[in-house]
Amino acid sequence: MNKVALLGCGIVGGGVAAIMRDNAAYLEKSVGHPVELKYILEKRDCSGEPWADKVIGDFSVIENDPEISVVAECIGGVGVAYEFVKRALLAGKSVVTCNKQMIAERGLELLAIAKEKKVFLLFEASVGGGIPLLRPLTNCLSANRIEEVCGIVNGTTNYILTQMIQCGQDFDRALADAQKLGYAEADPTADVDGIDAMRKLCILVDLCFGSNLPPEKVPTEGIRGVTAEDAALAERLGYAIKLLAHARRLDGERFTAYVAPHLVARDNLLASVSGVMNAVAVRGNAVGETLFYGAGAGRMPTASAMVADILDTMRRGNGRKFIDWGPEQPERLVDPDAVPTRWFVRYSGGCVSAFSEDCISENGFCAAITPPMDRASLMAKLAGLEIESVFRVLD
Amino acid sequence: MNKVALLGCGIVGGGVAAIMRDNAAYLEKSVGHPVELKYILEKRDCSGEPWADKVIGDFSVIENDPEISVVAECIGGVGVAYEFVKRALLAGKSVVTCNKQMIAERGLELLAIAKEKKVFLLFEASVGGGIPLLRPLTNCLSANRIEEVCGIVNGTTNYILTQMIQCGQDFDRALADAQKLGYAEADPTADVDGIDAMRKLCILVDLCFGSNLPPEKVPTEGIRGVTAEDAALAERLGYAIKLLAHARRLDGERFTAYVAPHLVARDNLLASVSGVMNAVAVRGNAVGETLFYGAGAGRMPTASAMVADILDTMRRGNGRKFIDWGPEQPERLVDPDAVPTRWFVRYSGGCVSAFSEDCISENGFCAAITPPMDRASLMAKLAGLEIESVFRVLD
Repeated sequence: MNKVALLGCGIVGGGVAAIMRDNAAYLEKSVGHPVELKYILEKRDCSGEPWADKVIGDFSVIENDPEISVVAECIGGVGVAYEFVKRALLAGKSVVTCNKQMIAERGLELLAIAKEKKVFLLFEASVGGGIPLLRPLTNCLSANRIEEVCGIVNGTTNYILTQMIQCGQDFDRALADAQKLGYAEADPTADVDGIDAMRKLCILVDLCFGSNLPPEKVPTEGIRGVTAEDAALAERLGYAIKLLAHARRLDGERFTAYVAPHLVARDNLLASVSGVMNAVAVRGNAVGETLFYGAGAGRMPTASAMVADILDTMRRGNGRKFIDWGPEQPERLVDPDAVPTRWFVRYSGGCVSAFSEDCISENGFCAAITPPMDRASLMAKLAGLEIESVFRVLD
Repeated sequence: MNKVALLGCGIVGGGVAAIMRDNAAYLEKSVGHPVELKYILEKRDCSGEPWADKVIGDFSVIENDPEISVVAECIGGVGVAYEFVKRALLAGKSVVTCNKQMIAERGLELLAIAKEKKVFLLFEASVGGGIPLLRPLTNCLSANRIEEVCGIVNGTTNYILTQMIQCGQDFDRALADAQKLGYAEADPTADVDGIDAMRKLCILVDLCFGSNLPPEKVPTEGIRGVTAEDAALAERLGYAIKLLAHARRLDGERFTAYVAPHLVARDNLLASVSGVMNAVAVRGNAVGETLFYGAGAGRMPTASAMVADILDTMRRGNGRKFIDWGPEQPERLVDPDAVPTRWFVRYSGGCVSAFSEDCISENGFCAAITPPMDRASLMAKLAGLEIESVFRVLD
């Protein structure tokens, strides 16, 4: 018992193997016994690797080995990863994963299996990479009703926006730089269109508000529409543009959840989160505002969170529940466009007098921060004008 | 079983009672059964209070009641609080506390009793108030060797310094304001002289580096020596002055730990932590830099952390170890003055040419940021000059 199998030994999986080797003394001290990596499931040829003797190609060896108590999934996606995770749980093994897509889309089903089998499905690494976030949310803040969660959860887009803000780069140039540095993939869609952030938001909402939020229900806007002019104007008005995953409890048990670029006031810590770093602010009814900051991605930070989850499954030998959430409650979810908020608007064809308080007017266009209103009211006020940009302001 | 006794019902204790009443539904959902507050040990007359029917005056009632599984200590100090906590642990009850003095001074002994009795002694609220910090450190970052911990852990002094930085107030005026607002006590010694921060640092070091650090071994400098001029000059050089509790691993297993005002560069998130808020940065060898931010004191934030600890004792029914640290290892502790660092110095009687790079010279004095050196080297360079201020620069 108490041995570990790793599924996939790419970037993050390799990090998990490295931590288990390099920090072995700390791990043993933490759980009171050695923590041994027994198998690595990997299709590619690993004959030159230091862990070559652990590599196997057949998942059923892991599934059927009673010595394996934890399976660490680093394959990604919802294909074989989902199949293997489900089989591992059904075989009575705990699973730790960094796979946000799988948890966002299949978490409800997989957690139910884990609960039934009295094993753990832990996924600290799926949101915020190495930042301790989900466990603090579910444990340390468990005395609170969570009112709001709002974060920078995608390092690629935060890097691109930081370049646009600090260096005046336009989106295409900043994206090309991010790709050159390895911060963005060749196909950057999942990042720049907000899909990655949206999956993470689903997981946060599931945990904070207790009912399943299907990814397709989350209004998601990426950063392709943000221009260098917007970033510069926001700066002049005292704000930084950030892509935020944002969910807020409204009256009763209702809540709203969406991903969109926001203007964040400079005295908010989130405005100071630069480059590929992530940060998530959580507001509880007792604790008030808290914020968790750190590396949201990368080999070692993500692996750090996965190994901590592995240790956690070993410490919690008693099969008590750790994480779960209920089925979807569609009646709780409110369209964010119906929730009044302040807006940043850039438009031409005249200036709206109601927006005159925080307003910059030059070169034939106006940029303004509006009073709080819903999107329909905003659009009514802007009727007949040529709208360049519309972003929410975080309050 | 699974009932709670509260020792002391003042500010924080009252908050614990309020959360247990107001958030009862969330607490029950979190542990799977109702969480009942059965006794409140309180000497003063509580006949008008809503919890008057729970008030008792004799600790032995709690000690001898098998229904009580958790004792929440909100008395403070190391007098009766220490006596009652020890007796509660010996009687086989878990204890949660916000009492940093008791944990810093007697944690080693009390944790050993808890371990022997297979109960928990939890103290999340003792450092950083409501910020989830100690559990993330000991659990979520358990795959890491912690390299450095550095934080703003005293809200009173951070409020005073913020006033000095943002409003140009001098120390006495800022302290008087803090006292008027209830942020500082009539006798502010424990806060402004760094004693409170030092106790919290001891707890952080105990947890991060694994051996007991006695409070009397920690070089501690408060903020009485910080002037409005220092704050303004630091600002001009691109830094904010912050009182930091700082511990860093050196080569081998050695480490240094001390409390002192530091200059913090403006692009470090710690520089943006204003007013009474707290934040602690933690660097691990796998995760890199993380930061935890929130309300470091106050009735509800502190109570939030204590109630989360109460719930945690109920979830972890299996008596496994959660927190402990080893006895003192004096040979590991290095005098911070012997560790090279950059310094901010303000002096008159001439300018030191070696400090010319980051230097302001006016009104007959010089203010400079030095290259890294130990304190003795610094003092040698300043020989013969009239030194006004010497503070470390955080790197």
